[in-house]
Amino acid sequence: MIRQFSQILLISLEKHIFINNLKYSTSALPRFSSEKYSIKRKNFGSLHDADLNYFRSLLSADRVITEESDVLPFNIDWIKNCRGQSKVVLKPKTTEEVSQILSYCNSKKLAVCPQGGNTGLVGGSVPVFDEIILHLGLMNKIISLDEISGALVCEAGCILENLDNHVREHNLIMPLDLGAKGSCHIGGNISTNAGGLRLLRYGNLHGSVLGIEAVKADGTIIDCLRTLKKDNTGYHLKHLFIGSEGTLGVVTKVAVHCPALPKAVTLGFFGVNCFENVLELYKSAKSSLGEILSAFEMADNGAISSTVENLKLSNPLGDFPFYVLIESSGSDEGHDNEKLNRFLTKEMETGHIIDGTVTSEPAKMRNIWNIRESIAGAGLVDGYVFKYDVSIPLQNYYDIVLLLRKRLGNKATRVYGYGHVGDGNIHINVTTPEYTKEVYEMLEPYIFEEVAKVRGSISAEHGVGFRKPQFIHYSKDETALHLMHGLKHFMDPNGILNPYKVLPD
Amino acid sequence: MIRQFSQILLISLEKHIFINNLKYSTSALPRFSSEKYSIKRKNFGSLHDADLNYFRSLLSADRVITEESDVLPFNIDWIKNCRGQSKVVLKPKTTEEVSQILSYCNSKKLAVCPQGGNTGLVGGSVPVFDEIILHLGLMNKIISLDEISGALVCEAGCILENLDNHVREHNLIMPLDLGAKGSCHIGGNISTNAGGLRLLRYGNLHGSVLGIEAVKADGTIIDCLRTLKKDNTGYHLKHLFIGSEGTLGVVTKVAVHCPALPKAVTLGFFGVNCFENVLELYKSAKSSLGEILSAFEMADNGAISSTVENLKLSNPLGDFPFYVLIESSGSDEGHDNEKLNRFLTKEMETGHIIDGTVTSEPAKMRNIWNIRESIAGAGLVDGYVFKYDVSIPLQNYYDIVLLLRKRLGNKATRVYGYGHVGDGNIHINVTTPEYTKEVYEMLEPYIFEEVAKVRGSISAEHGVGFRKPQFIHYSKDETALHLMHGLKHFMDPNGILNPYKVLPD
Repeated sequence: MIRQFSQILLISLEKHIFINNLKYSTSALPRFSSEKYSIKRKNFGSLHDADLNYFRSLLSADRVITEESDVLPFNIDWIKNCRGQSKVVLKPKTTEEVSQILSYCNSKKLAVCPQGGNTGLVGGSVPVFDEIILHLGLMNKIISLDEISGALVCEAGCILENLDNHVREHNLIMPLDLGAKGSCHIGGNISTNAGGLRLLRYGNLHGSVLGIEAVKADGTIIDCLRTLKKDNTGYHLKHLFIGSEGTLGVVTKVAVHCPALPKAVTLGFFGVNCFENVLELYKSAKSSLGEILSAFEMADNGAISSTVENLKLSNPLGDFPFYVLIESSGSDEGHDNEKLNRFLTKEMETGHIIDGTVTSEPAKMRNIWNIRESIAGAGLVDGYVFKYDVSIPLQNYYDIVLLLRKRLGNKATRVYGYGHVGDGNIHINVTTPEYTKEVYEMLEPYIFEEVAKVRGSISAEHGVGFRKPQFIHYSKDETALHLMHGLKHFMDPNGILNPYKVLPD
Repeated sequence: MIRQFSQILLISLEKHIFINNLKYSTSALPRFSSEKYSIKRKNFGSLHDADLNYFRSLLSADRVITEESDVLPFNIDWIKNCRGQSKVVLKPKTTEEVSQILSYCNSKKLAVCPQGGNTGLVGGSVPVFDEIILHLGLMNKIISLDEISGALVCEAGCILENLDNHVREHNLIMPLDLGAKGSCHIGGNISTNAGGLRLLRYGNLHGSVLGIEAVKADGTIIDCLRTLKKDNTGYHLKHLFIGSEGTLGVVTKVAVHCPALPKAVTLGFFGVNCFENVLELYKSAKSSLGEILSAFEMADNGAISSTVENLKLSNPLGDFPFYVLIESSGSDEGHDNEKLNRFLTKEMETGHIIDGTVTSEPAKMRNIWNIRESIAGAGLVDGYVFKYDVSIPLQNYYDIVLLLRKRLGNKATRVYGYGHVGDGNIHINVTTPEYTKEVYEMLEPYIFEEVAKVRGSISAEHGVGFRKPQFIHYSKDETALHLMHGLKHFMDPNGILNPYKVLPD
């Protein structure tokens, strides 16, 4: 079992990187989530042989996984923080099968945990107790692509990177890009309202998703799978399923608007002296680069050091307090370079940029992105990583890292911040040799209290999942929570879909 | 009364134009909607003096309008198609007042029709029977603007044009622009998920709206008024209120993301020989202009002729079967002009463009936009206009106009099409000397059947309102309609909010 588990690849949330042969102290199996976080099982039905027989008759035996060692990887999330106790993984191939599974489970009050690529960071994609795992990986067909309108229609289990490769052949790109692209499913992306690296340019999924087909807890198939950019015929139901983390329905098919593939992409990586200058650069980039600005990311010294020291990546720049990564994507290389050069010249003069490198060579760009995207996984080498993902107004954006460093002192190996400045979204990692309750209690709810003070979000893009329902009130008003509970009860009266997640008790 | 009514200005849906001294045969008061469309009053409470006294005590007497002639303009929609029979208009100034009004009405089962700028085209903003009109016009305060993030927070009754003027002073623009901007309210825009002229560039309101405060039918205030670009803490409740046309709640405050004001804007207006070439131009513009393409509009000869003949506007080009308007908005005038010239040279050579004019002069650009935006109002001069607003896949985009011309023959004065090619959205106007049931029955449901055949939308941006619930099934699946009904019952069990609208019986 342990051998099998150790083969689960570590997938960086910002781009798939494969970290092999790493030794770290958490390589043992994580504790059961229910024990670690003292959760009580709710009053759901229990799985019996008759249920398994029903599933086998519906799906065929090879798509009903019950061998303990085979089920194990589906029970554990990729940061090895959460571990469920499911006895079965079901692998439907069609929407009708999903519908029949849910209809059956609903009638027997069997709880269900829908799972995509299992790359989530808040334990939303793995069961807590014995929920049936509904794995969408075999629903991976691309259905259609309209090259003129950019409308892609596919099944929910398609892997994001495969979709991106496919649409690139037709001069389009996916409107989202994230570290887990090599593993994550588009259905999971939509269910968690994934953000990622292109949000600054192409907006969020509520804007990009054209249509959704989803299955409600009672098995009803909701067909909102239109491919139109404009459709004001009644309630915009698809948004119920975007970002509700599988608690209101299971997304089975999606239609996504794909923007045109940029003809020219250029990447700059810069050393900066202080956070104030990071902000000045952002303002300047918005003004000078305008419509071609496609990414504005920052990482502090600790974040970049973790990739150099833990993953032996080489930093093309010297040692700086802050690093900024700026990407431009446009339709004319000459124009884009002129804009970028003008910006660079100006910002070297102002001193906002101390040193830097700019490149359009694909291999060099990949190297730079690799540094940025490796940060998410690099901390794991220290042992354990407490990961936070918050939205904070830009003027307060970096304060929280300083506060945490002071608070934790030598209790932490590293405390560093990095993220999507353009979206007001910072990731904070705190690494320790191993998980300790002491550090945990120094971090939570302190960090959420600080975020709430500036009306930030305690989860910018990672979602609520299993790990944050008890903290959701820091970002959601009581009336909104009440409405959430009402919606859940309306959509899933028996509460079988992804229980113990998103909604506080 | 009639004098008063004739003073209602005709507001073009695509930009506010004031058409004075027009004479047309529909200047008399329209028939009551309930009679014209044979609607039965539902079992709501009736307004009594005690109710008026309560409202007067809550709002003060001057914000409770009961004089028949004063109430009349609020009872009639701007295309003079729908007319309600309300006896009272309430003008709250605060969210708390809205909450108290709704709580009271809910307890007495008094129906309520929320109204913004009353510029809708499907009768959604005027009552059908004696619904209380809840006019948001006095809730018109701008609350805050964050220049760095672009987050604007304001009350729902702010007029779109006022907001655009305000944010322009801070080098930002509103992410939407539509003909009614001089009258329409941002709350109404959001409640109807308004599209308009900038959607191609800045996406739809589901992507642009950062936060919403809304009041449920029972008076509960739902506070989702965050200004963060990323916030994945639980259900994305704000989308319940975007595009549900006031039937699930009354939007009282909004937070909208405003993009940077473009530094350079250029407009081209071109004559084109056939619709195939319009499509070729669109493909070419997407590729050549890429990120600076901010509008791609088309109008057929009939549409432009209506503005020339009925409104005496002058067409800067000769007589062509089709006209295309292309706008570019970017951050460098030199670069943008170079891209546009390259595009033009190529497309004159291919023959896709026969003649045209390109300008960056504000006055000239306004003239060209004025022609495009006057189309919506020009048809009224013929007497009566049947207006349709549909989404159709681009390969079939213009077919419907040809089908209708053939079907109607000399029964119609004009049949013309124009719209937002970039969004697959065409507006079809059929003008006649006056409303006749014969023409109406030749048009409906025929036009919706044709749209359904190509899986289009029977309402791309205008919504369902009062006029289209019975046709919604042409674009919405039965399970989706069932879910809509369920949501309505969950959010508004007594059905007091904007009854007779959106949902079919």
